[in-house]
Amino acid sequence: MGQPIRIAIAGHGNLGRGVEAALTRCPDMTLTGIYTRRDPGQIRPMKAATPVHPMAALAGHADCIDVLILCGGSKEDLPRQGPELAGSFNIVDSFDTHARIPEYFAAVDAVAAPAGRTALISAGWDPGTFSINRLMGEALLPEGTTYTFWGKGVSQGHSDAIRRVPGVAAGVQYTVPVPEAVAQVRSGTRPTLTTRQKHTRECFVVLEDGADAEAVRKAIVTMPHYFDEYDTTVTFVDAETLRREHAAMPHGGFVIRSGVTGKGNAELIEYGLTLASNPEFTSSVLVAYARAVHRLHRMGRHGALTVFDVPPGLLSPRSAEQLRAELL
Amino acid sequence: MGQPIRIAIAGHGNLGRGVEAALTRCPDMTLTGIYTRRDPGQIRPMKAATPVHPMAALAGHADCIDVLILCGGSKEDLPRQGPELAGSFNIVDSFDTHARIPEYFAAVDAVAAPAGRTALISAGWDPGTFSINRLMGEALLPEGTTYTFWGKGVSQGHSDAIRRVPGVAAGVQYTVPVPEAVAQVRSGTRPTLTTRQKHTRECFVVLEDGADAEAVRKAIVTMPHYFDEYDTTVTFVDAETLRREHAAMPHGGFVIRSGVTGKGNAELIEYGLTLASNPEFTSSVLVAYARAVHRLHRMGRHGALTVFDVPPGLLSPRSAEQLRAELL
Repeated sequence: MGQPIRIAIAGHGNLGRGVEAALTRCPDMTLTGIYTRRDPGQIRPMKAATPVHPMAALAGHADCIDVLILCGGSKEDLPRQGPELAGSFNIVDSFDTHARIPEYFAAVDAVAAPAGRTALISAGWDPGTFSINRLMGEALLPEGTTYTFWGKGVSQGHSDAIRRVPGVAAGVQYTVPVPEAVAQVRSGTRPTLTTRQKHTRECFVVLEDGADAEAVRKAIVTMPHYFDEYDTTVTFVDAETLRREHAAMPHGGFVIRSGVTGKGNAELIEYGLTLASNPEFTSSVLVAYARAVHRLHRMGRHGALTVFDVPPGLLSPRSAEQLRAELL
Repeated sequence: MGQPIRIAIAGHGNLGRGVEAALTRCPDMTLTGIYTRRDPGQIRPMKAATPVHPMAALAGHADCIDVLILCGGSKEDLPRQGPELAGSFNIVDSFDTHARIPEYFAAVDAVAAPAGRTALISAGWDPGTFSINRLMGEALLPEGTTYTFWGKGVSQGHSDAIRRVPGVAAGVQYTVPVPEAVAQVRSGTRPTLTTRQKHTRECFVVLEDGADAEAVRKAIVTMPHYFDEYDTTVTFVDAETLRREHAAMPHGGFVIRSGVTGKGNAELIEYGLTLASNPEFTSSVLVAYARAVHRLHRMGRHGALTVFDVPPGLLSPRSAEQLRAELL
């Protein structure tokens, strides 16, 4: 299969560790290095032989990296790193602030295109494979309604919001689809559902010493944007219970397109994920798209791209001939 | 949005009628004509204004057709029509004899590539969107197992096989996934399932006058390739019941990828279809891929292609900017 694709990781949090793990299952790729803003000596790579460098060393390593996977956060890291690095590297990232995608895309494209680099932004599952299914559902069934449900799973943004409430020592928030709403959508009736009807939010909170539980509960359930439009439950637990029962990062959800063809025949397309580890799955998606980015770059496809621009065949290590013979 | 894409239909059976219906929901496309081997005077197009021509007229109409959708069958029609027409037209078809795809692809490519035409073969749902999900499931979760279940739905091939049994006047065969097998797969245990464990086959049969029911039943359930590896039930009904209760063409099924990430976190991807009309849904897929073929042809992408080669964005009438802003 020729030389393995040389992958590097920028940022070694949950996502970076997930990319490391995913690469061990991809014999056509090799991890050339991990780049971190922390002290490289503090990083324990999965394979002891993997070099760990300070982020500043990246600039000198452009020649030995085929694709750089950016594993930072969408709030602070990527808006700065994407445009900074897309001029010297082919990159893949999981930028997931939906409302800012057009602006981020433009910023990355402005750097990558003139430099002849290929930059795939917003890979993962939402944005990512969920987006592909929203697009395809609508394209295949133009008359219809698309529903996205998330969960049951831990929302990082909402968990962070809880932890900012005065009196909260620690907390985890689960987004949970309402079973009745899901059943209605699957029945093909195409209901109009409000935010409150689609999801509930379940919070598990450890109080600080002396905090007023009722005040904390009220501050959470009335929090604008995050909780006020949902039915939210708050359960107080001790720190040990939170650690034991709520440390995992499961997630998932589904995209359903409910439409009609002909003279009213009901057609339903459903794409669902049940993930034991949200960051590890997202990392696995990043790695598959890194393979595609490497190929697109060699084909001369430069500038910023999204999952919408990638032919599925480029995600697979198999040849086009094999894919047609074995998977079509 | 510029000039509408000029679509023509070759063959006016269930699939051709489905394409007609699907086009009424695509304002960016226009149906320029229906081509048939039957007497054009016998064809009733959905819109009275749609011209109906004999198949032989196609040759003279190449200049006014952007994409020709081949709506013939995979057994008799397409193996001849595909290579014959791919030199003069951009085509889309639903060639679905899985074992013969490589050979059919080569035959179409040999004609389309030198002629500078774009030919997308084997669109639909299986092969088609199911194939995309088999490919992506494997690419995103390299350590795992892929399961395809079909049904509950009418299998045309198996219904035809029943009807060839002596003593059978009419018959319909349903392929039905075994609920226990599906539940096992969804649980993430990655079972090894035999053919018999995955699907059952239910036959509804109208006997000819004087036929021996038990002999017919036995001939069906022991039929090699079609039924001998399955648990098959045969229910005898009268012609009126068959017409009333078994005339619809529902189908569907699901593709499940059950895999692991990291140190054994279970991840499950499931893509499912519940179709009231199998041919109408297949036709809707053909129409969306016709849009992509038109665009790929204009981009200079010639020769034979499959759904694996098509970026999802090209299936949608929306612009890339809109897609990023609204669906990503």
